[in-house]
Amino acid sequence: NRDSVILQNLPKNHISHYDLNKLTNSPDALAQQEEVLLLTPMSKFVPEYWNNINALTYDHSLITLGFILPRNTDGEVALKALESSIKDLQSKNKLNYKKIVILRQDSNSLESQKEQDRHALSVQKERRGMMALARNSLVFTALSPDHSWVLWLDADIVETPPTLIQDLTIHNKPVLSANVYQKFINKETNQEEIRPYDFNNWVESDEGLAIAANMADDEIIVEGYSQIATYRPLMAHFYDPNGDVSTEMPLDGVGGGAVLVKADVHRDGAMFPSFPFYHLIETEGFAKMAKRLGYEVFGLPNYLVYHYNE
Amino acid sequence: NRDSVILQNLPKNHISHYDLNKLTNSPDALAQQEEVLLLTPMSKFVPEYWNNINALTYDHSLITLGFILPRNTDGEVALKALESSIKDLQSKNKLNYKKIVILRQDSNSLESQKEQDRHALSVQKERRGMMALARNSLVFTALSPDHSWVLWLDADIVETPPTLIQDLTIHNKPVLSANVYQKFINKETNQEEIRPYDFNNWVESDEGLAIAANMADDEIIVEGYSQIATYRPLMAHFYDPNGDVSTEMPLDGVGGGAVLVKADVHRDGAMFPSFPFYHLIETEGFAKMAKRLGYEVFGLPNYLVYHYNE
Ligand SMILES: Nc1nc2c(ncn2[C@@H]2O[C@H](COP(=O)(O)OP(=O)(O)O)[C@@H](O)[C@H]2O)c(=O)[nH]1
Ligand SMILES: Nc1nc2c(ncn2[C@@H]2O[C@H](COP(=O)(O)OP(=O)(O)O)[C@@H](O)[C@H]2O)c(=O)[nH]1
Ligand SMILES: [Mn+2]
Ligand SMILES: [Mn+2]
Repeated sequence: NRDSVILQNLPKNHISHYDLNKLTNSPDALAQQEEVLLLTPMSKFVPEYWNNINALTYDHSLITLGFILPRNTDGEVALKALESSIKDLQSKNKLNYKKIVILRQDSNSLESQKEQDRHALSVQKERRGMMALARNSLVFTALSPDHSWVLWLDADIVETPPTLIQDLTIHNKPVLSANVYQKFINKETNQEEIRPYDFNNWVESDEGLAIAANMADDEIIVEGYSQIATYRPLMAHFYDPNGDVSTEMPLDGVGGGAVLVKADVHRDGAMFPSFPFYHLIETEGFAKMAKRLGYEVFGLPNYLVYHYNE
Repeated sequence: NRDSVILQNLPKNHISHYDLNKLTNSPDALAQQEEVLLLTPMSKFVPEYWNNINALTYDHSLITLGFILPRNTDGEVALKALESSIKDLQSKNKLNYKKIVILRQDSNSLESQKEQDRHALSVQKERRGMMALARNSLVFTALSPDHSWVLWLDADIVETPPTLIQDLTIHNKPVLSANVYQKFINKETNQEEIRPYDFNNWVESDEGLAIAANMADDEIIVEGYSQIATYRPLMAHFYDPNGDVSTEMPLDGVGGGAVLVKADVHRDGAMFPSFPFYHLIETEGFAKMAKRLGYEVFGLPNYLVYHYNE
């Protein structure tokens, strides 16, 4: 890294001297050779996810991949598939990432869950609390002084523009979320259509604040459930197919599907709360924490990435 | 590290596979060859601090040192002194640490301050908020998958038992604080005596909770100021010169002078809040956050370490 000074005349290269101030975050990340840490909690290996990241046009030698897999059957299966896909790419001489870090989760995780089950409101506090710990372990273990950016990309994001990293870094925001949609076949027309998937990208509402104010200390609001009517404007609904893809909107909560974070935001301590933080947890709590640390949070309503359809 | 598996047959050694579950924290850390990350925010280089850590009897090849220095005149001076002390030790062939990481702070810091000025209640929120960011940057940049323990040791802790790391790890606690005292010359007797220095190691009190409950959202309590009478039991006052040095007491707040933390506590996301967190910030807020993450916090009232006397 051009910005780190290794002290001269010291053996074993074991003294590293970093000037965090010289690590840049610029709208022109690729030209500036800024390093990106691409982080994925992975309970399932989805081949389309893997093909999609390998097709990213940001210089792979500037990208470190980091994975954390649960310590359950799903995790075993995913790990094997991930490892063999890595070896496969390598055998074709196409593995050019700077580094790949694979972690096995230390903390608990729930057993395999269908979309319907894992989305039940009753399991959110436990499930998302565990996800929060997994995300924290991953970022705080894999983050190195060289990284300028952290890209959170879920293991079931199967389609993004190949210029994803350039497209997000160019906005030069501390936290920036893409809009996660899902493709499906409309059974009446037999046509492929798209629908909103991730409802965790939202703007706080008076109703949301009022609900929080009347909650017991340890209760949480998770967005996207009709049982908790927050009337928060959801980025998922702001998608305009004819709009400018680079339209930005300020957000108060984010999902974890595809979020770019300046590495300094995590270095300053922004983590994913596994406990209620302003009645929020995990990625939604992370957005609140980034804001408490003085950073702004944005989303791109017209910039779509696609979630796997089970 | 014996617990990390590097995938075979992959070039450049650039794929690392870590099983966080196999990283141990044991009462017998040294025999288990557990790695320690010793972290010090440093605005002044105090030679006695340096000599003291070099005299630690824990195997230095298992210790990584991490420093963060402010971007001001104090920081420049301290950095030069630190670097020349490192080189000096090295020229004597006595530099055996696994790695040394030196960071220059990206965030702001206050200009040089005398003990009296920096302890004024009015500057605590700003000063300790900045310290919190420095501590977060340091731990989240320097923490690697190999570390089992993080030892926070302030740059002006000038005297500890040489067995400090063994003495603290043997308790096998998630967070464990030593009792920070100060030596001084009693002007009447001309004798050296000791007095309590760090009042941030405390147990919550009903009064403390009541004060917090009546505070505006963004107000903070900092312990050790007569203006805020919390009547919290302070570990500093529990020192018993005839007591067992290994006596433990549960704490709710800690100072940063000499605190041992299991690396997993930081990996799970325990950070130093720079914003009011339950009306607490920095090391006191860290203790609260560790507790919210499900960990217990302890102190050793009879285990003394000594702060520099300006
Ligand atoms: N490490 C880890 N990753 C998980 C676990 N559960 C889910 N994931 C991954 O975390 C991300 C989000 O989880 P997912 O179930 O897709 O959430 P949803 O899309 O909101 O229903 C995906 O990348 C999953 O593969 C877990 O227990 N441990
Ligand atoms: N990086 C950094 N370290 C600092 C700064 N101010 C103080 N320190 C260090 O942080 C630790 C605690 O600060 P200190 O002023 O000793 O606090 P006190 O003993 O509670 O008065 C010491 O190791 C200082 O050298 C700062 O602005 N930046
Ligand atoms: Mn998903
Ligand atoms: Mn001090």
